[in-house]
Amino acid sequence: MAVRAAVAGASGYAGGELLRLLLTHPEIEIGALTGNSNAGQRLGALQPHLLPLADRVLEPTTAEVLAGHDVVFLALPHGQSAAVAEQLGPEVLVVDMGADFRLKDAGDWERFYGSPHAGTWPYGLPELPGARAALEGSKRIAVPGCYPTAVSLALFPAYAASLAEPEAVIVAASGTSGAGKAAKPHLLGSEVMGSMSPYGVGGGHRHTPEMIQNLGAVAGEPVTVSFTPTLAPMPRGILATCTAKAKPGVTAESVRAAYEKAFADEPFVHLLPEGQWPATASVYGSNAVQVQVAYDAAAGRIIAIGAIDNLTKGTAGGAVQSMNIALGLDETTGLTTIGVAP
Amino acid sequence: MAVRAAVAGASGYAGGELLRLLLTHPEIEIGALTGNSNAGQRLGALQPHLLPLADRVLEPTTAEVLAGHDVVFLALPHGQSAAVAEQLGPEVLVVDMGADFRLKDAGDWERFYGSPHAGTWPYGLPELPGARAALEGSKRIAVPGCYPTAVSLALFPAYAASLAEPEAVIVAASGTSGAGKAAKPHLLGSEVMGSMSPYGVGGGHRHTPEMIQNLGAVAGEPVTVSFTPTLAPMPRGILATCTAKAKPGVTAESVRAAYEKAFADEPFVHLLPEGQWPATASVYGSNAVQVQVAYDAAAGRIIAIGAIDNLTKGTAGGAVQSMNIALGLDETTGLTTIGVAP
Amino acid sequence: MAVRAAVAGASGYAGGELLRLLLTHPEIEIGALTGNSNAGQRLGALQPHLLPLADRVLEPTTAEVLAGHDVVFLALPHGQSAAVAEQLGPEVLVVDMGADFRLKDAGDWERFYGSPHAGTWPYGLPELPGARAALEGSKRIAVPGCYPTAVSLALFPAYAASLAEPEAVIVAASGTSGAGKAAKPHLLGSEVMGSMSPYGVGGGHRHTPEMIQNLGAVAGEPVTVSFTPTLAPMPRGILATCTAKAKPGVTAESVRAAYEKAFADEPFVHLLPEGQWPATASVYGSNAVQVQVAYDAAAGRIIAIGAIDNLTKGTAGGAVQSMNIALGLDETTGLTTIGVAP
Amino acid sequence: MAVRAAVAGASGYAGGELLRLLLTHPEIEIGALTGNSNAGQRLGALQPHLLPLADRVLEPTTAEVLAGHDVVFLALPHGQSAAVAEQLGPEVLVVDMGADFRLKDAGDWERFYGSPHAGTWPYGLPELPGARAALEGSKRIAVPGCYPTAVSLALFPAYAASLAEPEAVIVAASGTSGAGKAAKPHLLGSEVMGSMSPYGVGGGHRHTPEMIQNLGAVAGEPVTVSFTPTLAPMPRGILATCTAKAKPGVTAESVRAAYEKAFADEPFVHLLPEGQWPATASVYGSNAVQVQVAYDAAAGRIIAIGAIDNLTKGTAGGAVQSMNIALGLDETTGLTTIGVAP
Repeated sequence: MAVRAAVAGASGYAGGELLRLLLTHPEIEIGALTGNSNAGQRLGALQPHLLPLADRVLEPTTAEVLAGHDVVFLALPHGQSAAVAEQLGPEVLVVDMGADFRLKDAGDWERFYGSPHAGTWPYGLPELPGARAALEGSKRIAVPGCYPTAVSLALFPAYAASLAEPEAVIVAASGTSGAGKAAKPHLLGSEVMGSMSPYGVGGGHRHTPEMIQNLGAVAGEPVTVSFTPTLAPMPRGILATCTAKAKPGVTAESVRAAYEKAFADEPFVHLLPEGQWPATASVYGSNAVQVQVAYDAAAGRIIAIGAIDNLTKGTAGGAVQSMNIALGLDETTGLTTIGVAP
Repeated sequence: MAVRAAVAGASGYAGGELLRLLLTHPEIEIGALTGNSNAGQRLGALQPHLLPLADRVLEPTTAEVLAGHDVVFLALPHGQSAAVAEQLGPEVLVVDMGADFRLKDAGDWERFYGSPHAGTWPYGLPELPGARAALEGSKRIAVPGCYPTAVSLALFPAYAASLAEPEAVIVAASGTSGAGKAAKPHLLGSEVMGSMSPYGVGGGHRHTPEMIQNLGAVAGEPVTVSFTPTLAPMPRGILATCTAKAKPGVTAESVRAAYEKAFADEPFVHLLPEGQWPATASVYGSNAVQVQVAYDAAAGRIIAIGAIDNLTKGTAGGAVQSMNIALGLDETTGLTTIGVAP
Repeated sequence: MAVRAAVAGASGYAGGELLRLLLTHPEIEIGALTGNSNAGQRLGALQPHLLPLADRVLEPTTAEVLAGHDVVFLALPHGQSAAVAEQLGPEVLVVDMGADFRLKDAGDWERFYGSPHAGTWPYGLPELPGARAALEGSKRIAVPGCYPTAVSLALFPAYAASLAEPEAVIVAASGTSGAGKAAKPHLLGSEVMGSMSPYGVGGGHRHTPEMIQNLGAVAGEPVTVSFTPTLAPMPRGILATCTAKAKPGVTAESVRAAYEKAFADEPFVHLLPEGQWPATASVYGSNAVQVQVAYDAAAGRIIAIGAIDNLTKGTAGGAVQSMNIALGLDETTGLTTIGVAP
Repeated sequence: MAVRAAVAGASGYAGGELLRLLLTHPEIEIGALTGNSNAGQRLGALQPHLLPLADRVLEPTTAEVLAGHDVVFLALPHGQSAAVAEQLGPEVLVVDMGADFRLKDAGDWERFYGSPHAGTWPYGLPELPGARAALEGSKRIAVPGCYPTAVSLALFPAYAASLAEPEAVIVAASGTSGAGKAAKPHLLGSEVMGSMSPYGVGGGHRHTPEMIQNLGAVAGEPVTVSFTPTLAPMPRGILATCTAKAKPGVTAESVRAAYEKAFADEPFVHLLPEGQWPATASVYGSNAVQVQVAYDAAAGRIIAIGAIDNLTKGTAGGAVQSMNIALGLDETTGLTTIGVAP
């Protein structure tokens, strides 16, 4: 019997990507689709690439509309998920693609989001140590942010193997869909094509505490993170360049071995052969993560680089992967490691 | 029992897209993959987006390597398919993604390709009148060119309904993957980003006689075609703007009715609701065709616009669709109308 | 003594491009800069590429602010120029970069713009027959639309030499800056990158009557125009593919000769050598127009293709060129035919 | 009397950009233009954006052709400048845009370039402490690499003011023109559009020792550099994100003050107002450098970000700026801080 899924926030980029995946998920039946300002509109006008759903009409995001589903995905602006979630019964699997339930530290939440902390749910990055166990059977899932997904997967093996000093320096480039579908002048095509620019420099990006939380948990000690996100002239993709000073005694071989061990059994994370480097184009539309790592002996640093599709593994694909685990399905159901390239 | 398929020319863009589709085709088992200059290399180095095939090694394109498959796809440069095809037995389904067997008129072939005509195979554009019947059970398929796919689908209903004068004017924009993977200076990213430019102007493009052949067959009279292709700064997609003078008595309503009728039962061709226009982004990576049509009363012309992914419906998806028909499978098997957007 | 110029609408793309050109114009001193919603802001925040003007502050668009200048450029939304212009004295050179004073036919204006017709000013496309004489010494200039600039220059020689039937079919691709700086969802980078799409199909684009006006005047008879604009994934540039049926007796030679004659003495319009085709990248940031023409004997059509930078020759460069003529300066002052490429 | 300049290597991107600038330089007369494989071709076919030079024909790169000029620019592949330079007399100003004479340490050269070291010339980054004095009156100039230009300018104030520990971590994104005009598959538009990817990771990039040299000289102690370059989907521009651990006692105010002091009198380097961040689009085609700096107290690091046009300030503009100094001209002659945007 099919699992019936509703999507709250079906008109945005995260909601659209989720629907793209759910449409080919063999166990899912797509139920209610909701929007707020777009309620009443045909999905064909809002998501013209989802032809099989073109004639579906968005409903308002209410408890009544979302009732009667096995899974409810929340693709809402940060801070709106908690109010919706508390109206859904404990028997419903609620998958929050926003930030509301990611952070464990209430102070971090309040500092970066400026509102009361709603709580903490099992964290939907199955590849992190211990994450799968927390997701199995869970009825609540906090899907990670797109940057923390790329960064945590690229860097955690270095901390898991105690190879890196607890001061990470990260620069990441993201495609523009990461900034959402709300029309803002600096996101116009005229502005972003041909341009690279940073934002949230100096620790201000809201994904920073999430990275600190993930890496610190693996390292077993506090990790500082210098994180600089940049906007790249492409619609999708994150390339995260993550470096940390190597601990004494580290060699290129010990770094390679740690990464091979970390990803040996992972269905979605691929450590590339030596000499080949990740490219966001290679994971376009797929749930795969490409990782490569180097040890720069002259600078004494480990450089780990990860490439993901910010909308797939970075948002909707990660959500589906975690949902699969929570429902007891094969983790890879409905997901692919095949990118759309060139 | 799975259908075993070989791909000759697996390192190029057409071959790569075909493999992307065959990987999720439920009836296909991927057999030999061949290349010429790339024989001996891992596919992971050549097609890094096809992670499940990363460890496959390209073999040389020989009759021995291609033997023992139910289907052989030829993704070879124009003029090379015939020599390979004649070494394959009549019981093998041979799908030629090159131009060799598309044209019926030997003089056209010689004029545009400068070599002897190899012959004519059933034409793999199932949506054209009579095409499906010719493909059913066939052991040889000539996959259409990417431009003729977009143009023929956008314009044939006007000719099928005798609404248009037999003089078509077509301007089409193509993504750069249509020009292939061979490194040429004018195809460098530095050259193409930020630039639109025409080529093959004045009737010189090799796809012109194919369009004339298709439209003339539907019209029942010779159709002239003024075709101007342009190179657009995007990797994939064709947007074809096709216009023809309307015959006397044509109205917006009669045009709309003709298009609704033509595509009513087509699984891949979608006539958009009035007021919505095709966009190549909406069919990115999908086998869908978006079509819209208008009647410009002041200019007395019908304007039909089609958008496809040049590598999917325009090449590899069209090949799979036709293969499905030839093999007696459901025509849509392994194909999707869901695009990857934004 | 320097000519003192004010710019009303200095925060948009047209205003910004104009300032870029005026900054290096040897006869111009930049005076007041105005905006409406942006009044009070530093230009450095709005036009960060204009470093020499970074500390200038936008003033409101009022008669008082604009008073005391020799030239006033109006880079305002369509329909707003007339009200401002009538407050400026007859001794001030007013250059309207909007549409308000381009059309001669009041009915055309009302049909396409839905408001009362404000009048007709000398038309700032100096290369058209008779245009320079009307601009010399004029105190009012209507700068052409970007599409009509590209189309009229590419196609008028065919009509001037009576080579073409009076039914033009035009498909043009424009960079996104042509759609302005107002934030709209379909202009987001995520939407336009990787996508080609048409708009205003079937005669609805407001630039159509302007093309009809220009080409008809040259032809000496009414010309119908089928015009399809498309949005291309690049910030700047227009590539206009313009075709018309050739009149009896036309040859490739007679077409070439007509174009060579038309542009022999033009400083900005370059007929490319045979075999070379225009590219928008080649005129990026320059006032040059690249034109090439072909005669397709099989289809019986002339195909003329023009490439411009929509913001330079298509808007601000054309404005400066016409201003130069009106002021009695050398027409090329402050303008260049050197593009920024790659 | 005009300064007569020859350009060896006029068909590539560096040579083309240099010619773009020289065409509007008031003191320069453009003399011989040479190429190797392209000798005998019209420049109009190779650099179609340089319309005023379209009819110039490339000559072979020989001592005879280069003789009789006041300045000779060498835009040749690395390792080829020395042989040409030694044939030019000591009275000729030779400006090498390649790497041959940048490094002081012969061992560094041999390790990174694999050939004998040709020597060291005055270094053409005038903004570095002491650089202008070495350039004044010099007859030999080594133009810096594009990445070292962006990185050194963004980071040297931190070292000049003893604010940063001598371990820099740098991630930079470059447009594709930095990789040159030679056709290579991974630089095809189809490959680079929509993709971010790193290369030369782990200290392998040839620009690393140049950064170490520059920063170490300013710091007065050896500085290690972890440098990761990435290829961005745009034709031009470098965005360099440069971080270093802050020394004890550093504050946001002391960092800001050091940067304000360093750039107070610089004509091309602009420290942006607080809150505004560099964007490569803002310096497109200009010689300007946009810099911004932040102090991340939580991570204890200084983050300095620089944006340049890799072909202008990063190559040809830097060459002209240094030539101006060597010739005793105003340093800004023929250069601009006005970008072409959007």
